[in-house]
Amino acid sequence: MPVNLPALQAAELKPVNGVSLGFAEAHIKKPNRKDLLVISLPDYATVSGVFTQNRFCAAPVTLCREHLKTGNIRALVINTGCANAGTGEEGMRNARAVCAEVAKLSGCKPEQVLPFSTGVILEQLPVAKIIAGLPAAIAAQKPDNWFHAAHAIMTTDTVPKAYSRQVKIGSDTVTITGMSKGAGMIHPNMATMLGFVATDANISQALLNDITQHAADRSFNRITIDGDTSTNDSFIVMATGQTGKAITDANSAEFTALKKALTDVSIQLAQAIVRDGEGATKFMTVQVEGGKTEDECAKIAFAIAHSPLVKTAFFASDPNLGRILAAIGYAGVDDLDVNKMELYLGDVLVAEKGGRAVSYTEDQGQRIMKQAEILIRVKLHRGNAETTVWTCDFSYDYVKINADYRS
Amino acid sequence: MPVNLPALQAAELKPVNGVSLGFAEAHIKKPNRKDLLVISLPDYATVSGVFTQNRFCAAPVTLCREHLKTGNIRALVINTGCANAGTGEEGMRNARAVCAEVAKLSGCKPEQVLPFSTGVILEQLPVAKIIAGLPAAIAAQKPDNWFHAAHAIMTTDTVPKAYSRQVKIGSDTVTITGMSKGAGMIHPNMATMLGFVATDANISQALLNDITQHAADRSFNRITIDGDTSTNDSFIVMATGQTGKAITDANSAEFTALKKALTDVSIQLAQAIVRDGEGATKFMTVQVEGGKTEDECAKIAFAIAHSPLVKTAFFASDPNLGRILAAIGYAGVDDLDVNKMELYLGDVLVAEKGGRAVSYTEDQGQRIMKQAEILIRVKLHRGNAETTVWTCDFSYDYVKINADYRS
Repeated sequence: MPVNLPALQAAELKPVNGVSLGFAEAHIKKPNRKDLLVISLPDYATVSGVFTQNRFCAAPVTLCREHLKTGNIRALVINTGCANAGTGEEGMRNARAVCAEVAKLSGCKPEQVLPFSTGVILEQLPVAKIIAGLPAAIAAQKPDNWFHAAHAIMTTDTVPKAYSRQVKIGSDTVTITGMSKGAGMIHPNMATMLGFVATDANISQALLNDITQHAADRSFNRITIDGDTSTNDSFIVMATGQTGKAITDANSAEFTALKKALTDVSIQLAQAIVRDGEGATKFMTVQVEGGKTEDECAKIAFAIAHSPLVKTAFFASDPNLGRILAAIGYAGVDDLDVNKMELYLGDVLVAEKGGRAVSYTEDQGQRIMKQAEILIRVKLHRGNAETTVWTCDFSYDYVKINADYRS
Repeated sequence: MPVNLPALQAAELKPVNGVSLGFAEAHIKKPNRKDLLVISLPDYATVSGVFTQNRFCAAPVTLCREHLKTGNIRALVINTGCANAGTGEEGMRNARAVCAEVAKLSGCKPEQVLPFSTGVILEQLPVAKIIAGLPAAIAAQKPDNWFHAAHAIMTTDTVPKAYSRQVKIGSDTVTITGMSKGAGMIHPNMATMLGFVATDANISQALLNDITQHAADRSFNRITIDGDTSTNDSFIVMATGQTGKAITDANSAEFTALKKALTDVSIQLAQAIVRDGEGATKFMTVQVEGGKTEDECAKIAFAIAHSPLVKTAFFASDPNLGRILAAIGYAGVDDLDVNKMELYLGDVLVAEKGGRAVSYTEDQGQRIMKQAEILIRVKLHRGNAETTVWTCDFSYDYVKINADYRS
């Protein structure tokens, strides 16, 4: 059961002017399951994407990067059940075939279609099934389908993940709606992270690229479940331009407002993945502040968030906090003076001056460790940079889910 | 139960001329447990050490580094039950007090004593108990105590780990005997890795330093259980100089023979830690070859060996080998061409040309995955460098051990 993630309500998800979503059951891996989604966009939409850095990236990721260069994206096609990763040249041909078919049915060019796949690695995409399913998916398209779309992209997720927000930008009300999937940062057998966010705001390509990278860096690039980076991770932002005046100035209040709202939506979607992390029973926020650079803060935050020892201690509600100090120490910040830093668990000062704080008691630690949402805060006292990373604990069920998955 | 680690026999462990070992029950954390060990060395011994890179290194590690600079080490004192890490200035004072007492009892100077502690982090060393135990430990010293010494340094290890080898160097037979402890690369609550190797060979300080770094890099620096780096990791090599002519030439056959033999002993001791890894049911050798540099081979080998997804799949004997490809892809070798590499599991070619090998069948993968010792081999085809890393699988028991440890 996800940690503090309220059940998704269809009515919460506002349609985005210009975005239409349709799904189908294409029987890609299992019957009676929505496993194919086609999203269409108007001619004048701008689209931006951030993708996995994995060298073994999936064929659809390679194709997305290629197609985004030409711009003017008109459709997105997403399948579950097969990741089309580790599939060599045949995988590329298959991804192209799906784009060509979507283009034919939608009246656009193949390079105006972005493909996404999620599921098992090392297996070829069942192209015939996907092509057979496309007409039904396209026929079913409508703007208020976000709730069903969030279901259609699920794999091992236990709940659908979507979020919507409206924000006043100048005198206009702009809608931002997004959805995500993934139950591990990677779970390469049957998962991988996908995030899609759409807005009806009117914004130039360059500024949308800026927002997309900014939002990704503060949301999907700041979560970890098991430290593995997927072959298929993709985060896409679409702006249909249907509402308000064009935002073209990076120094304008409108740009700042949209950037903030879209980042907030992305953070909600990214956190939802962690809350639904494999076997998660706790949601942890790791905040590192007072660093020289954001990069060194992130190194320390991820060292803590990745450590199996830290994560199992949180699962056990055991305030075994030396494990956090050890992780800080091996994070790779070579000139770190551990005598200057402080470690807080929630509002409790745990360590300072290189050792346990005099005021700290095990009872205080125990009280915080029992909570379902825990803040770990590290103050480095060597600069003004900071960052925040979200993660979950590491339970028996993580091993169970990942050991038993295919059996 | 450790993976393929035969029960240690006292008779296997050859005494090393000049090395005397004595232990005591100092009741540091628990009664009726050998928890204190003092090793004495002759005046003319040379000693070299390699220590944790963790910034939060323990007080004894800091002191070892300091004392090794002065040279002429005469004694080592090792306690379990408390790591003396995350203990600030008081921790340093305590470590110095223990060295001073050993020096007083042994007739040497405090800076001729190396201290080692392993156990709980964030707790102060019970100096009085250790000092009270020292006379008994020193009185009990004798050369053929390696078997008991290997027991005395255990914490959560399920078995003692020691290994002995004799090798002909020139016309002399030289003995190399060592012991190690640790059940995770880190297990900072109650563990951390320690390795001690002694030889009666006669070798200069500079060449011993060279051998020590070489042996560490190919043994203790090539194992991982959970990817955490301890605050206390220490690897010490002692040469008493009692046998044979002095080895002073780095190009001599004698130097090469000693280096090889001492590295082999270190590899045995390091592998023993992995075989006794927390919850381990399988022992995996990850061999990466054909890299441009040893460093990039190590990045890929450790990415595979660290991945919780790879490790849970091995626990389940599930040939879910896309997980290995994903780990190779995110290892951080930016210009890696995945289409050129091959992945073997044992003697089975699994992947090539960026995808599954045409000849590969699930049955072949299953056959290898069922074995207790598994070789994962990656051929990069981009150079001549190679490296090998050892790790174990990731089981329910890992979570159980680390979640329940202090309760």
